[in-house]
Amino acid sequence: MSSRTVRRRLLRVGEGRVQWRGDDLVAEEPLEIRIAGRPLAVTMRTPGNDFELAVGFLLSEGVVESALQVQAIQTCSWKDTGEMNVLDVTLRGDAPQFDPGAARNFYTTSSCGVCGKASISALRTRAQWDVRDDALRVSASVLAALPSRIRDAQRVFERTGGLHAAGLFDAAGSLLCLREDVGRHNAVDKVVGWAATAGMLPLRSHVLMVSGRASFELTQKALMAGIPLLAAVSAPSSLAVELAEEVGMTVVGFIRDGSMNVYAGEQRVLAELPS
Amino acid sequence: MSSRTVRRRLLRVGEGRVQWRGDDLVAEEPLEIRIAGRPLAVTMRTPGNDFELAVGFLLSEGVVESALQVQAIQTCSWKDTGEMNVLDVTLRGDAPQFDPGAARNFYTTSSCGVCGKASISALRTRAQWDVRDDALRVSASVLAALPSRIRDAQRVFERTGGLHAAGLFDAAGSLLCLREDVGRHNAVDKVVGWAATAGMLPLRSHVLMVSGRASFELTQKALMAGIPLLAAVSAPSSLAVELAEEVGMTVVGFIRDGSMNVYAGEQRVLAELPS
Repeated sequence: MSSRTVRRRLLRVGEGRVQWRGDDLVAEEPLEIRIAGRPLAVTMRTPGNDFELAVGFLLSEGVVESALQVQAIQTCSWKDTGEMNVLDVTLRGDAPQFDPGAARNFYTTSSCGVCGKASISALRTRAQWDVRDDALRVSASVLAALPSRIRDAQRVFERTGGLHAAGLFDAAGSLLCLREDVGRHNAVDKVVGWAATAGMLPLRSHVLMVSGRASFELTQKALMAGIPLLAAVSAPSSLAVELAEEVGMTVVGFIRDGSMNVYAGEQRVLAELPS
Repeated sequence: MSSRTVRRRLLRVGEGRVQWRGDDLVAEEPLEIRIAGRPLAVTMRTPGNDFELAVGFLLSEGVVESALQVQAIQTCSWKDTGEMNVLDVTLRGDAPQFDPGAARNFYTTSSCGVCGKASISALRTRAQWDVRDDALRVSASVLAALPSRIRDAQRVFERTGGLHAAGLFDAAGSLLCLREDVGRHNAVDKVVGWAATAGMLPLRSHVLMVSGRASFELTQKALMAGIPLLAAVSAPSSLAVELAEEVGMTVVGFIRDGSMNVYAGEQRVLAELPS
């Protein structure tokens, strides 16, 4: 199954009428990622760009340090089901030792001290790239235009209304890659996986824009890809901003009607003031 | 840390001005849930109602069948950090045998056959309650009013713009419980945990309304609580609707301006037609 939408019949109720009509729903299917046959994770995702999703997920979780460490990805299609919902990844010998408990240990400590600060410092030791010194500068007018560029490119969203989007832009505001998914984290993983497969990591001087809110998890994924600026249509969480401050990333939110809020790393946003 | 918002300084850019101002961000902190000292899950959540969150999570994941099987919940606060981000749950002897791999095995099968249909049938064997025969009937006008009732009750959202909400309603449209969280699944777990702790499960003839989209995961949580009608401000995913059809749940989406789409279980929605 690889279609991103599923046609369904629904009952439309309102405006004094009740009528059956057809509609497109965003497709959601589980994807299991395995390493050498051992289950690593299951994510509920919109089918499409699954190899990119797997590569981006492995990178942002620190399972691999480079797309080159992914030697092969196999879909399990020996069963004649038409389903392609399992990816088995073969890692190269120089990949970090695979530890199925790593994702969990990332957050937890040996005692009761799990907290945002611990999450941030654990992440800092995992990040390969330093975004603090990234010389990116973006004008506020370029940032203000990003949401409409994403929306213009969101074909599936138009039809279903049910998708998150993540877009990768250069400093001039050109859209390099857009991915849509029922899960926000998947959309970002697909973008990062696309860039990694193209040999573009770290994504110095690039901008990642997400359609919804900016959470800790999305900020983490941007950091793991070396992206110095995360932009969001809506608000960031407290921990997203704390992480950004700690690592020197810029976070911009509430980009609407030409205005925006800069929550961290404001030196990268160039505001044009009336002279 | 238990505040749901965090005060931050931000740079507001736009309308020809650049100015520093204060703003409230939604708080996000990790919460680790342990069973008898063994880590079960870490979720990034907005602090507050953490015991409800834990109980709701355990119920919707099938770790317990009833809130009564939760004998005690301890916060680890022996370290003088002020953090309350670890909950250690003690289960009663009649709780199902705790299997840390259960959450994963829920989705996976022994072969390559992981797919939406497998997820649905695995879930059907875990659900304790049958919602198919629930006699709930709700008028379309009651459903149309739910989003504004949730919005009116969303105090934190007003201040931060960064929160998902889940509300539990009775058949007449009265709001019984509202929970807000940076994560959609957490908001639903908190509502379910609240109801479970009050001895209300199964939530026959109740309506669960969520502020965003209806995913498979949220539909699953509604089913595990015995809720016959899931309403969402935005669109459901394909798998959410497939699950609802399989188990006889009603799914209503796109509730806006007095209109709505009924994707499954339309017999429960009473439309008033002009006479």
